[in-house]
Order: sequence, then C-alpha cells, then structure tokens
Amino acid sequence: MKATLLTIGDELLIGQVVNTNAAWLGEQLSLLGVDLARVVTLGDEAAAIDAELDRACAASDLVLLTGGLGPTHDDLTVEAVAACFEAPLRLDPTVLDRLVERYRQRGRAMPEAVRKLALVPEGFEVLDNPVGAAPGLWHAGGGCIVVVLPGVPAEMQALFAAEVAPRLRRQSGLRVIAHRTLLTAGVGESNLQERIGDLSEHLEPGLRLAYLPGAGAVRLRLTATGQERAAVEARLDRLEAHLRRRIGAYVYGRDSDSLEAVLGRLLAERGLRVAVAESCTGGLVLHRLTNVPGSSAYVVGGVVAYSNEVKQQRLGVAARALEQEGAVSEAVARQMARGVRRSLGADLGLSTTGIAGPTGGTPEKPVGTVWIACADAGGEAARLLHFGQDREQNKERSATAVLELARRRLLEAAPENEPDPEKKQGAAGPDRGP
Amino acid sequence: MKATLLTIGDELLIGQVVNTNAAWLGEQLSLLGVDLARVVTLGDEAAAIDAELDRACAASDLVLLTGGLGPTHDDLTVEAVAACFEAPLRLDPTVLDRLVERYRQRGRAMPEAVRKLALVPEGFEVLDNPVGAAPGLWHAGGGCIVVVLPGVPAEMQALFAAEVAPRLRRQSGLRVIAHRTLLTAGVGESNLQERIGDLSEHLEPGLRLAYLPGAGAVRLRLTATGQERAAVEARLDRLEAHLRRRIGAYVYGRDSDSLEAVLGRLLAERGLRVAVAESCTGGLVLHRLTNVPGSSAYVVGGVVAYSNEVKQQRLGVAARALEQEGAVSEAVARQMARGVRRSLGADLGLSTTGIAGPTGGTPEKPVGTVWIACADAGGEAARLLHFGQDREQNKERSATAVLELARRRLLEAAPENEPDPEKKQGAAGPDRGP
Repeated sequence: MKATLLTIGDELLIGQVVNTNAAWLGEQLSLLGVDLARVVTLGDEAAAIDAELDRACAASDLVLLTGGLGPTHDDLTVEAVAACFEAPLRLDPTVLDRLVERYRQRGRAMPEAVRKLALVPEGFEVLDNPVGAAPGLWHAGGGCIVVVLPGVPAEMQALFAAEVAPRLRRQSGLRVIAHRTLLTAGVGESNLQERIGDLSEHLEPGLRLAYLPGAGAVRLRLTATGQERAAVEARLDRLEAHLRRRIGAYVYGRDSDSLEAVLGRLLAERGLRVAVAESCTGGLVLHRLTNVPGSSAYVVGGVVAYSNEVKQQRLGVAARALEQEGAVSEAVARQMARGVRRSLGADLGLSTTGIAGPTGGTPEKPVGTVWIACADAGGEAARLLHFGQDREQNKERSATAVLELARRRLLEAAPENEPDPEKKQGAAGPDRGP
Repeated sequence: MKATLLTIGDELLIGQVVNTNAAWLGEQLSLLGVDLARVVTLGDEAAAIDAELDRACAASDLVLLTGGLGPTHDDLTVEAVAACFEAPLRLDPTVLDRLVERYRQRGRAMPEAVRKLALVPEGFEVLDNPVGAAPGLWHAGGGCIVVVLPGVPAEMQALFAAEVAPRLRRQSGLRVIAHRTLLTAGVGESNLQERIGDLSEHLEPGLRLAYLPGAGAVRLRLTATGQERAAVEARLDRLEAHLRRRIGAYVYGRDSDSLEAVLGRLLAERGLRVAVAESCTGGLVLHRLTNVPGSSAYVVGGVVAYSNEVKQQRLGVAARALEQEGAVSEAVARQMARGVRRSLGADLGLSTTGIAGPTGGTPEKPVGTVWIACADAGGEAARLLHFGQDREQNKERSATAVLELARRRLLEAAPENEPDPEKKQGAAGPDRGP
C-alpha cells in the first residue's frame, strides 16, 4: 500500500510550527507496512488542497490529510475535499448533537461558527474524535482510501490509533516493513562505507541500508520488506549479524539507545563508578552521563578544569607537563584522567583536553585538536582526535569519543566480548563525519 | 517570489527524523519576504526527485532542495537535479581540491567515495560549505532559481546564511518582513500574558506578537510587515520599547543571544571570573557557559558533585548541613556556591542542587524541587524552584534559572542599570513554565 500525506497549515510553511505530525504518522504507517512515498505541506488555500488531493489520489492507495479542520474561516480542508470529490456537504445531525452536548457539559452554548465542524462531504464516514471537537473522515472507493484528521497532534494521534489504524490493518495485502537501526561511534561515514560499502551494493531485493550521520556517531538503518513479519525479521537478523561481523566493535547499540545509557548499563552491571575531568568539553560529558535516569548510582561527579590552575590543583596535573607538552597533550590528558579517578575515588576516570575553537589554535595544534583519555586500575588509554572548526560540534564529538573510549576499555577488560578490529589493524585515523 | 521546498530522505518519511529543516527554512524565507507555498518530502529515489523538481520549477520562482548530498549510494539528489536539467555532471577541480585538503588537514587520504561530492551539473554554480564537506549548488535561469543544500541542519543553515540569503536579497520586488525576538527568563508564559496580554490584543495592523515557550525561557517574537525597511524597523522599535517598559527586567537579550552569552559579556566587561558547583544539573551549566566562544577568559571551571562525599570534600559542604537539611536545601546550595567560589578562586560561585527525577522524590521534596545559589564577595542569593517530572527539562530549567540569578545579581551590583520590578513587588513565586 502506497501512501501520500498532505499536511495543511500556513503555520507549517512559515516555520512557526515544526511538522511533527509527519514524522509521527510516517512511523505509524511504516509499522503498519504502509509505504509513505510523499509528504506535501500546503497552506490554508482550498484550490491548492483540492489540486494536490486529486494528484495524490491518482498516485496512491491511501491519502491522509491533517490540519485545517477547525471552526475558523482559514480552516478549508473539508471544503477542499468536498470540491475534489464533487460531493455536496451535508450537516450531520449526530456530529452536531455531540458538539452541542460537548459545549453544554462545559456550561456554554455552542458558538455558531462551530456548526461548521458538523459538515460532512456526501459519501464520507465520520470518525469520532475521542479527544477534541473536530471529527475525522474516512472514504474508501475508487481505488484510493482518503482519511481526514485534525492537525492538533494529540487529537490526530488519538483518532489515528482508535479509528484509522484498525481499519487499515483490516485492509488485505499490506506488505510488512521493518526497520532496525545500528548505532556506531568512533568511525566516520566514509570509513564505514569502505568497510561495508560492498555489502550495501549487493543486498538482496527487499533489503536496504542507509547511513544517517551525526556528531561523531553514524546510525545505520536496515530496512526489510516482505509478505510475512517473521521472514522479514529473520532477514534483518541475518543482515545485522553480517554487519556486526564486519564492524561490530563500532556498534554500541540499537534503535533508541544512547551511548551514555549503554556505558551506564556496563558500569552498573559491573558495579563500577566513573568520574570525569573535562577541559575542552566544558561539562558536556558529565551532562550527557547524568541525562540518564539512575546515573547517580555510577556517576561520582567530576571537575571542569578550564584553567591550568584547576588542572594542577584539583587534578594533580604536573606543572612540568603543562609547560613542556602544553595543556592539549597526551601527558596532560593521561594525568587528568588519573587525577580525577584518584581524587574523586572512582573506578574509571575520563578526561578531555583540546582546542574547541574558534580561537586558540596554533600551526602545530590547530582548532579541533583534542586528546582524550580513560584511566582505570590497569593504567590508561589515550587517543588523539582531529576535528573541524565548529566549537559546539567539537565539544559533541569529543564527548562521544571519550564515552566510546570508556565503553571499549570496559569491553576489552572482559575477554568474553567481541574482538576489536582496530587492534588488529593498528590505530585507526582520526574519526570524522562527512 | 513564490517558493517550493523539496526535502529529501527516507528517514523523514519513516519518521526517524523530524523535518526541522522545513521549519527553519520556512522562517528564513518569510524573513526575506519569500512566500513558501509548498513543502514536499520525498525518499531517496532519483526518478521521484527529478519529476517533482520539474513540477516545482514550473510552478515557482524559487526551488530549494535539501538532503541527499552525501557520499553514499543512497545520496541521489545531485544526480536527479542533473537529470532534470539534462545537464551532464562534471568533476569540479576546485571542489575536489578542497575535499582533498580537508582530509589532508586531518591526516587522512580522501576515500574514493568522497570524489562524488565534487560532481557538479553543468551550468550550476558551487556554493562553498563553510561547515561540512558537501557544497551547495545554485542555478538561476529559465524563470526559476534552483538551490541545492545539504540535509545536515548545521551545514544547511550555515550555507543558507552565508551564500543563499544574500543572493536572494539581491533579487528585486521582495516584500519587507522583519522579526525581532525578545528573550526572557525567570517568568512563565501565563505570567507574561498577564503583564502584556492587553498590548497584544490592540496592536496596529501589520504588527504581530507571538509567545514561544521554552525550558524556563519564553521568547516573544515581534513581527512587522510593510513596504519599506526603515518604517518596518521603526514600528518594531516602538513595540519593543513599549514591551520593555512593562517587562524589561525579565528580558535578557534579543534574537539569537543566549543567556550564557549575555552573562558572559557581563562577566568579561567587569573582569570577573565564574566557577560552578553542579549537583542536579550534572554539568549542564558549565556546558552552556563553555559553549560561548571565548568563555575561557571568564570560566575558571567547576565541580560536578553528584555524591555527598564530593560535596563535602571538594566543596567544603558541612556534613551537618547534609544530615540535617538534606542535600537539596538552601543551606547546601549556599555552601556549594561559596565553596566552589573559594576553592577555585573565582569572583562568582554558582550552584544547583535538586531532584531531577524520575526517582528520588519524597513527599516533602518531590521530583522537580531545586535550590540554586549565587555567591560573590557580598554574600549569596539563593532561590527555591519547583519544576515537573521530566529529568532533562528539570536540568535545563535549573541551569537557565541559575544563569539568570547570576545575571540579575551582577545587574543589581551596578545601580546604573534598569530597576528590577520583582524587588518592588516582593519575591516572585517559584517559576514554572506553562
């Protein structure tokens, strides 16, 4: 089943409202196995809605419209739908009664303008709105199902779940679509492409692989379609297993996992506590770690050491290292990680020191040069990173890199876990998204 | 000028990514006086992009495309644009050099797949991407301007601001629309509404006022339209002056200012340095302060004290206060602010301690209870806040509140500044967004 979504409203076009309805419906349709092929956003203009609906019906098995169902003069969706279907509008007495009753319960007379909500195009079925005033509409016939829903997200969602999804599920021949997302860190998009690019070019029909880049973390989206849920999931399982054999060490989680939550689970499972010494990330690593509910069980705290005095006095970094190597150096990163681990009594100490920019760069250490380290009872691991010019991106990427360094170090400490391909191939180059 | 926006990407259709690019571009186009008439979202499929672009060019004076410019096989936008214009793709040597150089600076050879980013359809102008790898494209002619931009929001925004907006402004006949945003903190939407609601109901035609609520900070957007820039700006000036007379003490800045940047300027002007002791905000206050370029001049650093041991040992909080009053108390907040100020040698010490949730609440101190404090040479100011159940929102609101507390304290210390209406009216109640 191929679908088009028309989202209606001037507020969407001038950027006053972000179109979250499109994302929500896109996900719901995909769960149902409906292939949403286009989303079109239009203003409150009846002729444009009419023309687009006509085109959408010709190209799709299902057309959903949201928005423009209110009582005001700029709510024109029902009018446009009626015009497109050449269906006269009739006043539906049941809907009108419900509206009058709704106002009566609130101790008010129904304003005259609200009568408009009871106008239904001939041949359309009314879908009761369990949350708000404006009902939805359903029309099946002529090779295309047309569904009209309110634009208020809570009303749209309630109506879709209660009335639309069950009707669509009853339609036969719905293809099954399933998605799965593998979350990677510590490897750029083009580096991933080199490692698995051949795979994605020779996928069996009905399987797709997409790269969704972020700051220091690329998501790989696997999509499978087919006739039967179990077979589709089995194909995703096989593709995931195949990908993990190639790039498993970079995969920190699946779907809505976050790197900080995955690291947090590892720490909690092993009864370990972490402390962080941050220079260039300025608090972001701790902020991300403490965004996870329950993180107080394994986050001791940390020190944001923006000045050299704080690095020396609070973290025990040697004045000699600061003078000879500079604040952005392997020696200082290691001493910071060791220092915060010891001084806060944690099992794991993380550190970041770098030049976030836009100023502070030198020819030897340009903006984007970052050292990170992770210390535990066995010593430290440190890593040099080279990022770009953008301060906030550099903070975000550095934070991701040090969280990933900690995750790897914990996994390496447990020999039963998957091997790290980087160790076999020598250190990888600096990571960077596209 | 009438525009169509095509946003490209399977991730938008299946709801994995919310289409914030459409809202951002919609607002920017409206600022320029361009009328965005349609937004169409399509998947990564060249034939569909080609057909839609053809239709959009026929119906619009301007067509923008975003997304699908990366190096992977599912990035098909440039290919589709070339097909639509029947323009052969040429390898642009300048773009290729920039890409190679970009990788060289990071100590890496450019992966072969990245060469694709240097393919430019014949007749298209290259727009340098100041932030990322993929360049933008510009084509004017045949009655329609076509602009191709990357889909990564930071890159799209940077390219639009640096290259696209100036070119569009040079086009004649654009209507003048001007927006101005007043940024407030420390006051909820309904409280603001009470203070200025009468104003917004009696605005002269062509003036609009909108409330955009955020976490602990409400933005007021003023919009004026007209035929001439100077007259439009003058009307905005009058409305802004009027609003500032009513609610000036809550207004910390304008437009793209951030509270942390405003506080940073105050600190820098006065040669003061700040340190932060964070419990419930877990690093967010320091993260926000250090997002500001140049903040190393006035941020000494800080301590994230998630555990009571760290509060005692690193901040000198008395064991007695922790036992008798609890970690979330006025006494502890004051001692944390004093402690971090003294121990890091700063002029200003800020602190947060609270229950971010979702667990840890008690009947006396439910989730969302937060104490903040600001210490300077003259003593401390402390404040109790009551927020809701959402952990990340509670962190964000607490951070905003303590930054605002510091801003007010600095302004109060300088009597030449605007009076604070709260002081006249007694302490305001706990802040709470709508």
